[in-house]
Order: sequence, then structure tokens, then C-alpha cells
Amino acid sequence: MENETIAAISTPMGEGAIGIVRLSGPKAISIADTVYRGATPLASVASHTIHYGKIIDAKTEQRLEEVMVSVMKAPKTFTKEDVVEVNCHGGVVSIQRILQLLLRQGARLAEPGEFTKRAFLNGRIDLSQAEAVMDLIRAKTDQAMTSAMHQVEGRLANAIETLRQQVLEALAQVEVNIDYPEYDDVEEMTQQTLVTYASQVRTSIDALLTTASQGKILREGLHTAIIGRPNVGKSSLLNSLAHDTRAIVTEVPGTTRDVIEEYVNVRGVPLKLIDTAGIRETEDIVERIGVERSRKVLQEAELILLVINQNEPLTDEEERLFEATKEFNVIVILNKTDLPINADRERIELLAKGRPIVATSLLNEEGLEALEQAIASLFFESGVESGDSTYVSNSRHIALLHEARQAVEDVIQGVESGMPVDIVQIDMQKAWELLGEITGDTVGESLIDQLFSQFCLGK
Amino acid sequence: MENETIAAISTPMGEGAIGIVRLSGPKAISIADTVYRGATPLASVASHTIHYGKIIDAKTEQRLEEVMVSVMKAPKTFTKEDVVEVNCHGGVVSIQRILQLLLRQGARLAEPGEFTKRAFLNGRIDLSQAEAVMDLIRAKTDQAMTSAMHQVEGRLANAIETLRQQVLEALAQVEVNIDYPEYDDVEEMTQQTLVTYASQVRTSIDALLTTASQGKILREGLHTAIIGRPNVGKSSLLNSLAHDTRAIVTEVPGTTRDVIEEYVNVRGVPLKLIDTAGIRETEDIVERIGVERSRKVLQEAELILLVINQNEPLTDEEERLFEATKEFNVIVILNKTDLPINADRERIELLAKGRPIVATSLLNEEGLEALEQAIASLFFESGVESGDSTYVSNSRHIALLHEARQAVEDVIQGVESGMPVDIVQIDMQKAWELLGEITGDTVGESLIDQLFSQFCLGK
Repeated sequence: MENETIAAISTPMGEGAIGIVRLSGPKAISIADTVYRGATPLASVASHTIHYGKIIDAKTEQRLEEVMVSVMKAPKTFTKEDVVEVNCHGGVVSIQRILQLLLRQGARLAEPGEFTKRAFLNGRIDLSQAEAVMDLIRAKTDQAMTSAMHQVEGRLANAIETLRQQVLEALAQVEVNIDYPEYDDVEEMTQQTLVTYASQVRTSIDALLTTASQGKILREGLHTAIIGRPNVGKSSLLNSLAHDTRAIVTEVPGTTRDVIEEYVNVRGVPLKLIDTAGIRETEDIVERIGVERSRKVLQEAELILLVINQNEPLTDEEERLFEATKEFNVIVILNKTDLPINADRERIELLAKGRPIVATSLLNEEGLEALEQAIASLFFESGVESGDSTYVSNSRHIALLHEARQAVEDVIQGVESGMPVDIVQIDMQKAWELLGEITGDTVGESLIDQLFSQFCLGK
Repeated sequence: MENETIAAISTPMGEGAIGIVRLSGPKAISIADTVYRGATPLASVASHTIHYGKIIDAKTEQRLEEVMVSVMKAPKTFTKEDVVEVNCHGGVVSIQRILQLLLRQGARLAEPGEFTKRAFLNGRIDLSQAEAVMDLIRAKTDQAMTSAMHQVEGRLANAIETLRQQVLEALAQVEVNIDYPEYDDVEEMTQQTLVTYASQVRTSIDALLTTASQGKILREGLHTAIIGRPNVGKSSLLNSLAHDTRAIVTEVPGTTRDVIEEYVNVRGVPLKLIDTAGIRETEDIVERIGVERSRKVLQEAELILLVINQNEPLTDEEERLFEATKEFNVIVILNKTDLPINADRERIELLAKGRPIVATSLLNEEGLEALEQAIASLFFESGVESGDSTYVSNSRHIALLHEARQAVEDVIQGVESGMPVDIVQIDMQKAWELLGEITGDTVGESLIDQLFSQFCLGK
């Protein structure tokens, strides 16, 4: 299976200036040679060199495309296998045809993420690094990219390895102590050792987990809903945010083209706007989808921007919006400061219950900076650092860290409640395994398959 | 201007496994070096080699991406200038950020087609080859690709050069004859020479023009409308064609995402289906858009597929459809052969006036092959050759060939009507210039700018 040579289109589909078909595996070079005609056969070129030539139909010798072919020989490649990249004029038909030719010559179509999977299976990167490659591709802001890049470089992998080392040392110590039962206090010493190590590990996990909520926001975006009565300025707010920053609209892979996600970048925080189509079309999410469903939409929201027209007195409907969102992260936006104030500010402050209130005139583009500041500081107290923080961002990693923390907690509790060492030891081993699932050392094949299947084609 | 170093994203926008930012110009390597950190600076590597490294923010030295950088030194490159391709994990933010960094370091954002334009201006390819590069990218079928590939390789350029050579020889001969006026018959000899050469050139142009209509179809697709009464099977026909072949749906650049073009590949002929959305939604283009507008849609059609349910008697409406399309290329499709025949076949044959009639049962997938054969042979008598024909496909080239033909025709007519040689000579010179516009030898800067502006970004 791993000895098969795989091929896939590695550039996004669509007309472009350059399209790439990538091959990886022991026969990558020989398969490419069957359809390549250039000055020198690829088999005899040096590694990491680029060659001009034509792609031909091996059956008819007809020339199909002019290409630049990159040859990279194992092991210094993305997959640690021989890799060939055929770089062609980026037409849809052209690139498909080159792929078909290579498949006909004996390559197998790569599954999504299979190149990166091989990089993992061949030991070039660990699982957390492999997952970060996809985060890097899907990053919506520079800060998210930096966070993913740190993970690609192995920062999380190293942190986890250090933790596992500590757990392993604790377990080794226990073994040693048990092997020398001639000392009287062996049981006590062993328990003491376990508690010491477990506490250290717990502290380290806690430190990692403090970055988790921020890391997750950077990675997945902050689900944000804009709500308010009709004509208070929701649509203007949406446009201001999208215009002021750089909105990124992505199609969700595997679904119809109607489902799009819109992100705006607010000082490095990617806001994933909920139901923006609804706002654009009807100016009112609540009106359009009904109160019950809108309540459900709000459930998903991690941030709610509640827009109020302060030129008008507060309405019962607005009182109800405050009531419905009292459990949420809300920023209250008092819009239309360009008009006379008729809303009861004291009442609004009471309803806001200490949550931020920002006055804006979206018409005159006033107050947006304060709003962006309020959003950023609500989730990143000291601002989003573009610097050196290591964020734990992946839900899978966060869940495993929580479980591992529980396991070491159980170790400590177990010792305190006087459980026998060989029972407590089991929890310590469990922590070791849970941490290993993050780096992929102790992870099952089916999970690996599932993780890589979420990658894009050709990666 | 030409000494500037240009940069652009050369892969299609969207999440992908690989994204490429391309640089071309005298400072391509030095600019790349300011943001690249690897084992060796790019300035000291050999041409046509690939290097692993990191892209950093030159201000902060922060590492942003891991990349493979290809260095190709002038003159053996696409543009004949130094070219650097930065090959990164293909995220939208990532690739934009790398481009921004390079622009900050002194590169200028490339205009659409500017890389290919430089290949042309620097003499690596002629204008017809440059135009064919874009045809290659936009090709909808293998045959269209082959035709474009021939043009990229310079077949049309060579044919035009040969013609221009003949015209030049004629003009030289005329000069020589005029320079030796001591012979009595010099005027007559000169005229004879001009007619001989002009006739040769005319014959060659005619040969090229015979391929034009087919070439244009291959390049631009055959505008095809499917018409018929409701529920005769138009939608099934559409689906059969799209399913049986491989439909290519492309968004039209520069317009909203709603405007899409759908192509189906019928034996190498790309059918560009008109108003397929209309058929899918309402099962009836005529009904939906009104008879007047549908008549207009039909005006654009180069092929009309008129579907009739032969299980029902012919209606007045169908008689009118035959009447409305009597000037067109029509293929009559008698559908539902799985049901008893109630339509008057003789009457249909009368109305078809010798145009092809194909019986199908789209339900049972019968008759499709005959239909595809009928479509292919209507436009390509001996089938679409995937082999060696040189098609003239570009409307600009076709128009220029017609004009050049007229110019040599004028030479022949001029001589026959006894015009003085120096007047006739002007037409011959005109032919030389018109042919030169195809290859770009005699073309103005504004036309060149306009042609390349239709290219995609990064090409």
C-alpha cells in the first residue's frame, strides 16, 4: 500500500496561470518519464532540479502540453519519498488530462491528504504538525497563520514530547521503586514521586490550556451574530466590517455553492459571520427566520453584536433581545450618533450588565475603531500577539489535553485517597497515551484515516 | 518599465495544496532573497534548482511560511528574464501575505498576462503563440487543447512567416525591376511577378481559412440551444449530454457568480449550452423568457437541438419552431421511441428539409451515440481529428487573414485593370502588414496591451 505511487492535482481547481500535478512514491520518476519528453530523461537528472519539456500521450506520442517538471528525490522531500511535480499551463482540461495520463501509466489517484499522511507515516512530521499544515491553508488572518506555522514547526509537538517524557520518568521511577521492595518506605516514596510528577504535568497542561480558547478562535474563527431591529444599521455594520478589513468568503468544500462562509478580520481575530445572507437580504435575521430559529442561531454565537438606533427610544423588542442574550458575549452598539439621542442610556447600561457599549455613526464611519478594539480585547486581553505565543487551537488537541489533565488529576487524587500504587500507575499510563494521541504516537489507524480525509485534494 | 521586477499569484484563488507566487525581472532573485531563509541564499544557487526554506517578515524576522523556492535564471525561462517561483502551502491568507511581502520589497504587481507579454516582447514567442497560451488554459476538450498546443509550438507562426516571406520576395522583385528601367518589358514583368506571388499567397490563405470555422468552434465552443415543447425531454437531453461526457462549468471572470457557462464535450466538439439554467428550472426556454426573447437567444445559436415527443402528434407550436429555425443548423430529435409513435414522420421530414433527424429514447439511453455522431459530423465532416491539423481558431487571426486575402485579391485585380505598379504595390505591402499583425511584428502597443489584458492574473 505504502509502496504505491500516488498522483493528484495539487493546485485549486479553476483557470489559472499554473497548474500542478504531484506524484509521490518509488515510481514517481519512472512514471513521469513515460509521458515526459525533454533534453534529459528525468531518471538521470539531479535531485531538486527543474526541467523544461513536453507531456506526450505515451500511446500516440502526440504532444499535449509544455511543462516544467520538478524532480525531488527521497528522502529530502515533503513525503520523504521521490516526488515529481508537473507544472503546466493551468487549464482545467490540460491538468485533468495530465493526471489521467499518469494514472494510466501506473500511478494511483491520491486520497485527500495522502501526501501529508505519508509525511507523517514516514516520520518527517508528527500528527500535530500534519494537522497544522491544514490549519495553515485554512487560516483566515495573519495571526492564525502564525499560530499554525508555529505548530507546523513542531512547537506543540515539542511541548507534548516534554510532557510525555515527564510522565515516562515518573513511570520508570515507580518501576525502580517496586523492583527494590527491601526498603520500608518504598510505597510512600513511590506515591510521593507520582504526585510530584503528576503535579508538574498538570501545571504544564494548564498553561497550554489557557491558550486554548484563543487558539481555537484563531483557528476556527469567532462565530458572530449581528442582531437588532430593522433599520438600525445591521447591514451597514456588516459592510463596514467587511470593507474596513478584508473579508474572506470561502465556499464550504463538499457542499453546494450556496453555502458560503464569510470571515472578517478584526485586528487579527477572524469573525465568522452567521447568516450574513439573511442580513443582506432582509435586514433582519429575527424577522426572516422566526424567533425560535433565530434563538437557535444565537446559540451557536460566541459573540453577539447587538445594534441599537439611539435616535429612537428603546423598544420592548430590544428589551427582549437583551433578555434573550443575557448569557452571551454581547457588545452593544449604539448607532446613529450623528442624530439626536432619544434612547435611554441609563436603561441600556443597566441591561448591558457591564458588557461593552460602543457608540458609532456607521454613516460617518465613526466609532468603528472603538468597536474593533472592544471585540479584540474581549477575547484577547492584551491584544492578539503576532509574536511568539504557542496557541493550542485544535479541538481534538484541546479535548485530549483535558482528558490527560483529568488522568494526572486522578493520579493525585488516587494517592491522596490511599489507593495502591499499581492502580494509580494505570492513570499515569493513560495520561501518557492520551498525550501520545496528539502527536500521533499512540493513535489508531482509523482515526488517522479520518483526520487526513478532511484535508484538501493533492495535499 | 520593462526593467521592473513583477510579481503575482499564479495559481487559481482558493484553498489548495500548493500556491505559487511568481516573480520575473532583473531583481527577482535579490527581492526573493530578502524574505527567504534557507541553507543557501538564492543569489548563489544554480539555475533551475529548488530550495527548501522559510519566508520571513523582513522587518520582524518572524517566520511566516515554509516554502520550496524555484530559481530559474535568464534567458532560459518563460519570460527570458530571471524567474523565481515561491511554492507555499496553498492557503488564501498565506499566499496573499507572501505576495504583499514581495511587493513591499520592491516588486511591482504584475498586470494580467504580463509574464506572457514579456515572453513576447523579449522575443521568446510571437503574438500568435502568446495568444495560444491562453487558449490552452481555456480549452474545453482534448482536441481544442491539441489545436492550441500546435499554435503554442508555433505552427501558425511558421505558416504566417512563410506567407510574409513570399510577399516580401514579391516586393523585392518589384523593387529590383523598377531599379532597372532600361528593359522595355519591365512594367509587364513586374506586374506578372506580383500576380504570381499574390495568387500563391491567396491560395495559402484560403487553405488556412478552410480550417477557420472548425478552429473557432474548437476554441470558443459551439453555441447550442435545446428547444422544444414542455415535457418532450429537453432536460433529460441536457442531463444525458452532461452526464455522458464530462460537463465543464466555468464562472465567467469579472461577472457575478451567477453567470456560468456550461460546456459538454461531444466527441471533441465543445458545445456551449445556452440558457441551461432556464431549461433546468422551467423545462421550457420559450415559455420562460417569452417568444421574442427566445428568438433572440436563438440568433446566437450555431446549433439548435429541436426535441419532439414522437409519442404525440405534431402540434402547431412545433410547426412554428421549425419555421423559426429554418435558417439554422438544426438537428431534430425524435424522443420517446420507447412509446408508440404518433407523430407524423413524413411531415417532420418535410419540415426538417434534409437536416439530420435522430430517434432517441433518453429514458432508456438509446440513440445518444447517433446524436453525438450527427453533431460531430455536422461541423467536422471527417470527425474531429485529434491528430495533425493546424486550425486557425482565433477570431482576430481569422479577420486579419480575410483582410490580407482581400489585399492580395486587390493586387491581382489592380494588375488586371491596368493600375500602375506603385499603386498595386501598396496593396501588397498592406498584405505584409496585416499578416504581421497576427504574429505581432507590425502590431501597435495599444492592441498588445488590450490582448494581454484578457489573460488571467499571474500568467
